[in-house]
Amino acid sequence: MRQDGRIVCFGEILIRLSAPGAEFLLQTPRLETTFGGAEANVAVSLARLGHEARMLSVLPDNALGRAAADELRRYGVDTSRLRTGPGRMGLYFFTPGAVRRASEVLYDRAGSAFASAPADAIDWTSELEGAGWLHISGVTAAVGQASADAARAAARAARAAGVTVSFDCNYRPSLWAAWDGDGPAILGEILSLSDLVFGDHRDIALILGRSFAGEGEAPRAAAAEAAFAAYPTLRRMASTRRIQHSVNHHDLSGFMFDRDGGAWSTPALPLTPIVDRIGGGDAFAAGLIHGLRRGLDDQRTLAFALAAAALKHSIPGDFNLAREADVESLLSDGGLDVRR
Amino acid sequence: MRQDGRIVCFGEILIRLSAPGAEFLLQTPRLETTFGGAEANVAVSLARLGHEARMLSVLPDNALGRAAADELRRYGVDTSRLRTGPGRMGLYFFTPGAVRRASEVLYDRAGSAFASAPADAIDWTSELEGAGWLHISGVTAAVGQASADAARAAARAARAAGVTVSFDCNYRPSLWAAWDGDGPAILGEILSLSDLVFGDHRDIALILGRSFAGEGEAPRAAAAEAAFAAYPTLRRMASTRRIQHSVNHHDLSGFMFDRDGGAWSTPALPLTPIVDRIGGGDAFAAGLIHGLRRGLDDQRTLAFALAAAALKHSIPGDFNLAREADVESLLSDGGLDVRR
Amino acid sequence: MRQDGRIVCFGEILIRLSAPGAEFLLQTPRLETTFGGAEANVAVSLARLGHEARMLSVLPDNALGRAAADELRRYGVDTSRLRTGPGRMGLYFFTPGAVRRASEVLYDRAGSAFASAPADAIDWTSELEGAGWLHISGVTAAVGQASADAARAAARAARAAGVTVSFDCNYRPSLWAAWDGDGPAILGEILSLSDLVFGDHRDIALILGRSFAGEGEAPRAAAAEAAFAAYPTLRRMASTRRIQHSVNHHDLSGFMFDRDGGAWSTPALPLTPIVDRIGGGDAFAAGLIHGLRRGLDDQRTLAFALAAAALKHSIPGDFNLAREADVESLLSDGGLDVRR
Amino acid sequence: MRQDGRIVCFGEILIRLSAPGAEFLLQTPRLETTFGGAEANVAVSLARLGHEARMLSVLPDNALGRAAADELRRYGVDTSRLRTGPGRMGLYFFTPGAVRRASEVLYDRAGSAFASAPADAIDWTSELEGAGWLHISGVTAAVGQASADAARAAARAARAAGVTVSFDCNYRPSLWAAWDGDGPAILGEILSLSDLVFGDHRDIALILGRSFAGEGEAPRAAAAEAAFAAYPTLRRMASTRRIQHSVNHHDLSGFMFDRDGGAWSTPALPLTPIVDRIGGGDAFAAGLIHGLRRGLDDQRTLAFALAAAALKHSIPGDFNLAREADVESLLSDGGLDVRR
Amino acid sequence: MRQDGRIVCFGEILIRLSAPGAEFLLQTPRLETTFGGAEANVAVSLARLGHEARMLSVLPDNALGRAAADELRRYGVDTSRLRTGPGRMGLYFFTPGAVRRASEVLYDRAGSAFASAPADAIDWTSELEGAGWLHISGVTAAVGQASADAARAAARAARAAGVTVSFDCNYRPSLWAAWDGDGPAILGEILSLSDLVFGDHRDIALILGRSFAGEGEAPRAAAAEAAFAAYPTLRRMASTRRIQHSVNHHDLSGFMFDRDGGAWSTPALPLTPIVDRIGGGDAFAAGLIHGLRRGLDDQRTLAFALAAAALKHSIPGDFNLAREADVESLLSDGGLDVRR
Amino acid sequence: MRQDGRIVCFGEILIRLSAPGAEFLLQTPRLETTFGGAEANVAVSLARLGHEARMLSVLPDNALGRAAADELRRYGVDTSRLRTGPGRMGLYFFTPGAVRRASEVLYDRAGSAFASAPADAIDWTSELEGAGWLHISGVTAAVGQASADAARAAARAARAAGVTVSFDCNYRPSLWAAWDGDGPAILGEILSLSDLVFGDHRDIALILGRSFAGEGEAPRAAAAEAAFAAYPTLRRMASTRRIQHSVNHHDLSGFMFDRDGGAWSTPALPLTPIVDRIGGGDAFAAGLIHGLRRGLDDQRTLAFALAAAALKHSIPGDFNLAREADVESLLSDGGLDVRR
Repeated sequence: MRQDGRIVCFGEILIRLSAPGAEFLLQTPRLETTFGGAEANVAVSLARLGHEARMLSVLPDNALGRAAADELRRYGVDTSRLRTGPGRMGLYFFTPGAVRRASEVLYDRAGSAFASAPADAIDWTSELEGAGWLHISGVTAAVGQASADAARAAARAARAAGVTVSFDCNYRPSLWAAWDGDGPAILGEILSLSDLVFGDHRDIALILGRSFAGEGEAPRAAAAEAAFAAYPTLRRMASTRRIQHSVNHHDLSGFMFDRDGGAWSTPALPLTPIVDRIGGGDAFAAGLIHGLRRGLDDQRTLAFALAAAALKHSIPGDFNLAREADVESLLSDGGLDVRR
Repeated sequence: MRQDGRIVCFGEILIRLSAPGAEFLLQTPRLETTFGGAEANVAVSLARLGHEARMLSVLPDNALGRAAADELRRYGVDTSRLRTGPGRMGLYFFTPGAVRRASEVLYDRAGSAFASAPADAIDWTSELEGAGWLHISGVTAAVGQASADAARAAARAARAAGVTVSFDCNYRPSLWAAWDGDGPAILGEILSLSDLVFGDHRDIALILGRSFAGEGEAPRAAAAEAAFAAYPTLRRMASTRRIQHSVNHHDLSGFMFDRDGGAWSTPALPLTPIVDRIGGGDAFAAGLIHGLRRGLDDQRTLAFALAAAALKHSIPGDFNLAREADVESLLSDGGLDVRR
Repeated sequence: MRQDGRIVCFGEILIRLSAPGAEFLLQTPRLETTFGGAEANVAVSLARLGHEARMLSVLPDNALGRAAADELRRYGVDTSRLRTGPGRMGLYFFTPGAVRRASEVLYDRAGSAFASAPADAIDWTSELEGAGWLHISGVTAAVGQASADAARAAARAARAAGVTVSFDCNYRPSLWAAWDGDGPAILGEILSLSDLVFGDHRDIALILGRSFAGEGEAPRAAAAEAAFAAYPTLRRMASTRRIQHSVNHHDLSGFMFDRDGGAWSTPALPLTPIVDRIGGGDAFAAGLIHGLRRGLDDQRTLAFALAAAALKHSIPGDFNLAREADVESLLSDGGLDVRR
Repeated sequence: MRQDGRIVCFGEILIRLSAPGAEFLLQTPRLETTFGGAEANVAVSLARLGHEARMLSVLPDNALGRAAADELRRYGVDTSRLRTGPGRMGLYFFTPGAVRRASEVLYDRAGSAFASAPADAIDWTSELEGAGWLHISGVTAAVGQASADAARAAARAARAAGVTVSFDCNYRPSLWAAWDGDGPAILGEILSLSDLVFGDHRDIALILGRSFAGEGEAPRAAAAEAAFAAYPTLRRMASTRRIQHSVNHHDLSGFMFDRDGGAWSTPALPLTPIVDRIGGGDAFAAGLIHGLRRGLDDQRTLAFALAAAALKHSIPGDFNLAREADVESLLSDGGLDVRR
Repeated sequence: MRQDGRIVCFGEILIRLSAPGAEFLLQTPRLETTFGGAEANVAVSLARLGHEARMLSVLPDNALGRAAADELRRYGVDTSRLRTGPGRMGLYFFTPGAVRRASEVLYDRAGSAFASAPADAIDWTSELEGAGWLHISGVTAAVGQASADAARAAARAARAAGVTVSFDCNYRPSLWAAWDGDGPAILGEILSLSDLVFGDHRDIALILGRSFAGEGEAPRAAAAEAAFAAYPTLRRMASTRRIQHSVNHHDLSGFMFDRDGGAWSTPALPLTPIVDRIGGGDAFAAGLIHGLRRGLDDQRTLAFALAAAALKHSIPGDFNLAREADVESLLSDGGLDVRR
Repeated sequence: MRQDGRIVCFGEILIRLSAPGAEFLLQTPRLETTFGGAEANVAVSLARLGHEARMLSVLPDNALGRAAADELRRYGVDTSRLRTGPGRMGLYFFTPGAVRRASEVLYDRAGSAFASAPADAIDWTSELEGAGWLHISGVTAAVGQASADAARAAARAARAAGVTVSFDCNYRPSLWAAWDGDGPAILGEILSLSDLVFGDHRDIALILGRSFAGEGEAPRAAAAEAAFAAYPTLRRMASTRRIQHSVNHHDLSGFMFDRDGGAWSTPALPLTPIVDRIGGGDAFAAGLIHGLRRGLDDQRTLAFALAAAALKHSIPGDFNLAREADVESLLSDGGLDVRR
């Protein structure tokens, strides 16, 4: 996979409106506003880790769209190629869970500028000039027909240009249902254009129409084997496993497989009490891309990705704001006490 | 006009998301959430003034829609007949102005449950049972074809049932433009079914395709004369005049005319520094309805309405939370010092 | 027990003034204000679960009393029969605990309008018209002689009218001590008029002047047997067991017994880290009443009650704002991960 | 008047619970907590101005009482002689006004430890050792019979010990009404023991049962003449005049008279927009005492007092936290621009 | 003056720590954090107005320095050439004034990375490649000998490279006093290298050792004449006049002169109540540079600058976040009412 | 050790500026401000536990320095002998950790008034009049040469005057490195003047240049033996052991040894989730001094100290605000449930 050239992330940027503390939505008259979106989260994380990351998206030409672009720029993402278009800003309302009450996401993204953009809004050939890596996710494909088409066009153009393609399955049933999209077929097509996939046995089962019994490494290994068989360009597959003892107490471990039979895993890391679980998968993806781009060895790459994901759970908002030194510090076991 | 029977208000309920202080939208990561909507504001104000007020609207069946209904119920509005339907919650983002920077409203109400409801979603004959008064506004008509039709159907049904109809012109060009609605024609049709209209010479000029030169009482009187001539059922017309010295320093006065040539006005009330100007017109409308329902004399009715509007400018949010005693206290000139 | 008719709750409504975060009281210059009171908590919870719940209480005729009524109405409680009377608003100051520092309640309710109301302020015969259920608690009896008399009068009137009576012992030594009330005797008298009691072996031991050794199900079963023997109208007895590992880490389980020897219990549910423990017992009571009113089977009824209590621990304030779907979701083990 | 010895202030300390911004009480679920009380305000202001000020009061022995004492100590008041006693903490709820809506104080001080203390709780002879000045106000006298008696005993003891007595009339009708106290008689008795009185013609009219027509200096001069005639020990009388253009725009001027016919006044100082008007009179009293204790000339003393009062209007809370340099800076007209 | 090429701003970036509301510093346990510095303010304002603005400065390599850079990048400033160096982050504590209490700045910038940087830390020849404009201010010169030298070196290099130099006198006595710097001489030397100076007759008087009597346009015109005579490269001089009625009520007008005898002024704009006065001069400078770069006519340029400065007074923080459309809207007198 | 006489604490007082929640520093534009410093923490804790504690330090004569003194006075510390001097206020920025991300302290104390004070700024002979105990810590010694000298002078003077000396090693490598101070030598010298040392085997190893293998009681016992051998005046040594399962889940136990071979330890107390870990060691020190001053038996003294330290972990800020009754309540195992 390529270690040179800019990393391009393509997807929708959302404003997140969260109830403060562990309140129900609008229990008190205040919402906390942060920004997110699967690919934007990856872009921010990569920029914070020191990479040149560019975001491609479509935003409304209003105060909300501009604020979203500003926030990505704040964290070092290249926002010079963001487009504006008709439509509203995509939002999601977030009710953080606690104890045994699960968190809830209420999407309010219908009619967004991103969803309303035509599939050919972006000329991928020119946009990928200077790029070495393209990252997209299944959320983009799930937003609607046009963005599903755009995601496929992006992956095809990247493939054609020798740009590495990473793809995070991120299956969101409610989004697919909203426009009756054929999730498995579309995700499969993007997978067939990818070099690296973030997904576990459940994702592969859904896409290939198969099933992989069990939990942990075994079904993931089987699913990886099946995916490598089905998709000749695919070279790596990575995922996390999340065991949830309570809403804010999880154990997280990481797995990675390559086409040559390589398999790596990490011990489970207990995370409690979690500050903010949103974006954990995106932080993992960014951490893994970091390891591959930096040429870390495979085990270190996976460990770095898991540590990045773990850190995300301690940071409010969707973005993993940790820097390379923060991740290294966790990896080197510098201790958990106050650093002075 | 009828002083018996419930007051029914029909219109869209919105969540307002405001930047705190005098910040730009999302300058800091927090929004203050209140609720509004022209007719909901009138309903809350009437309930606080001691009237039986019922809100008719369509909300999404989700946490946001339920929170909106809860907030109206909190202030004593009868929410038992609110409906739910497909679509999202109508929002508006508010950037409060200051000094010489005007406040800005960014509507985000496209695709709302209210706008998506069919014109015949409400059976007006049965909904108006027990009602003595119907209040609607030009905002409802401006939301889209279906709600424009619904507004007209409501007014027609009320007229047929002997229910007094009050109508606030509330002309919002950006909403009419969004669906290319013929504002003047539709507003005129509703006006032709009304007993009481809230509007000034600019509203009447727009609807009748005429113009009334000047400022203050004279053009308002001329417009009232024209309106009474054009609309035989119309019996009263009332409006405020707002002179703005700066964003938060206004002078407010009130005017009322009746079909028999009666004309009333109030001295201008200086308001500075204004806390929240939104909902001032709705507070005036509710105050005037209060006076008419309670049988106050005409001058007192207008003075009560203006005092209610003035109080609204001292209260955060869209709702005028003042109670009858608060308005009376302002009217009786109880003084401006601390009450202990 | 009756499944028809309105549920009437009688007791004092309090404003809670809480230190934010884990601060000592007034460590920083801000208090968070919510509302509570054992019976009000039950009323809100029942209204949120879809029941017709009416609150009977006495409030001061000032801004605080009105705010308390507004908040109950917000959540769907019927507040149309709340009375006002001389006296102040009952308050309690709350210092939330943490780690190994216990939470503290500082009652400031002496001289409240509720405590000052005469015992015959409410004509129970007329107030219970249309009612199917009356819920009261030992807190009401403990406020003072007049409210102890009122609580007994309410229970007697309900008994006479065929209205089911549920009673939560809620023994509060500091309140009884303040007026030297004979807690055991008065609680026993109310118990003798009840169909359902919320209490454990410690409550029954206190009331009957006996003791039941041990922890868990055995002493609760013995106490239930004794209570059924002593109080012929009593048909069910339910309680929770709370094992506290730290201030914010508890295990909670539920127990229910009936006069026919039926005994039900639930596994212990670990709750950590708890957001707000206040109102857990009231949420349990409301959940159990919900199950009985809806005709759920006994085990399901108890499980629902425990799940409702568990959810309360994740919600700031005294009120369990969970809706039926929230409780069902916990019961059906829909998982602890983010719901999108 | 004495310039040596400690200044002793005697009165009730209250916690103030304020709605934030310009909200109605409990419009949002938060109250801001500060501390106040007429005499405590004077004590804090004097301590900030560099004087040795001791507070005498009775507080409950709980977290609230201790927090009140801590806050006074924070600002340099000597709290070593505060007592505790049975009863609750005195509170007042504050709804800040705006525009044309007056601020409102809702007292909740019935049954406080201060009000419940017996009249002889304090041995004034020993408490006044080392004191050169005693300051009390009409609020203390108005709290109830016991504190009215205590206030008189304090003034008598001070008189006997050659300690200068200053008295702020601070007439609060609602407090006197609550226990049917004879305000004019009691205030008159304290006045007859005072050296310096803070009050205007309305206060003297009330106490002497006379009337002084007009506004401004003339009626104040006439009232002073009458007071000096009626009370032989009285040597000075001072007051402010407050003209209110709106709730937060006042003009404030100061007046002082002495027994020898001396009369001083200041130009009116426009104050807009006022941040917090509470405690303005107490700041004036402290400023005047400061001038007298420091031996400033009469005009300077009055100007200092008025500047101190003016500064108070720019500071949130009851306390005037300004230091001597802050007042001097306003007096010396150092300009209104940012100081860097 | 050049309209092409990047605008480079050179100066210290500071974190501002402000007391909230109108509180004294640390009156409550919270500080609001924003960012500022005279040249950073100009850079942000220019970026918001659509210009390519680059900031040159030296920051500590820690979380504070990085946050400062992030915030500038957020608003579109090119931060790619910011340096890091030993030393701390420059801070200033801000106590906002109110009513008649002036605001206070407490600088805490001794030992900052900027102040500690050697005078030749920046190779101006290479840094000015691609630049068309350099903006510096007297604050930079006042920080210490090294930064005074750096400021002069920057101006010399710009002059040599044909880069337009604008200079804001910004005389800060407390900074010059701290290192005993010869302010007039150093400011004069920079002035001798400038094309455009922001300053009034007081600045020129100080630098030239002369005096210009009076207020308003006349002394400014005389000072401009003197400056043009003394400094042959100087082509324009601009300033505002600020009349302060109270701490938050000012009248602001603008003046501009050119070497050819051109003189422009604006009417005074009343500003009340001001939200945040800091950065008003920097907003004026940026607005004027905007007009000159865009080729607006002279009167329009000055009007634009004054409108930009006026808008700044309505925005919390040091930065003028207004965009070109906001300024145009104020200029075109679009009215002060809510924009929907 | 002496149980009479005032306790004097000598060291630097710092303002702590903390990111709210679990945010990164300046992630959102707000910092929470509290006060701290190792010796100030001990002084506050002792004052809250009922002891006469006086703070000796040097503060800048500005709003920040005064606020620091005010806060100590608020909690009952005698601040009458604090000095002011040239230099800035010492600050530290705090990024609270979470989950597996360690907390971080960013010191910003270079050039503080305390660090800038000459070694002989304080005349120890007169300052120790009336004192029975002196407490200092290794932080004071680490600030710079002058404060190291001052710490030694203080200890010597105390020794000479028969004042008990307690010393907390508090080794901070980053502070020593900043001025190249010989930490082991200087700490050793102070130790040679102490009666009681707070430190574990790592501290003694560093100071004596030895090593003590293992964890828990054994190496602490060996280190104590070595310390008693090396320092003849030393009579007791105490420390905590902290096992960290995650950033906010620790097990804490206490150890104490005396010169006569006495050894005491406590069971480990699990602390989770920790609210604020800063100041835990200072709370332990204060608790131990409390036990010794009150003459508690040795085991009780150690248990009290550990309970005090445990409580500190539940309190926001550096100060242990627990009072004696709070500690006793934890010790007596009054239970973890809400106290009403």
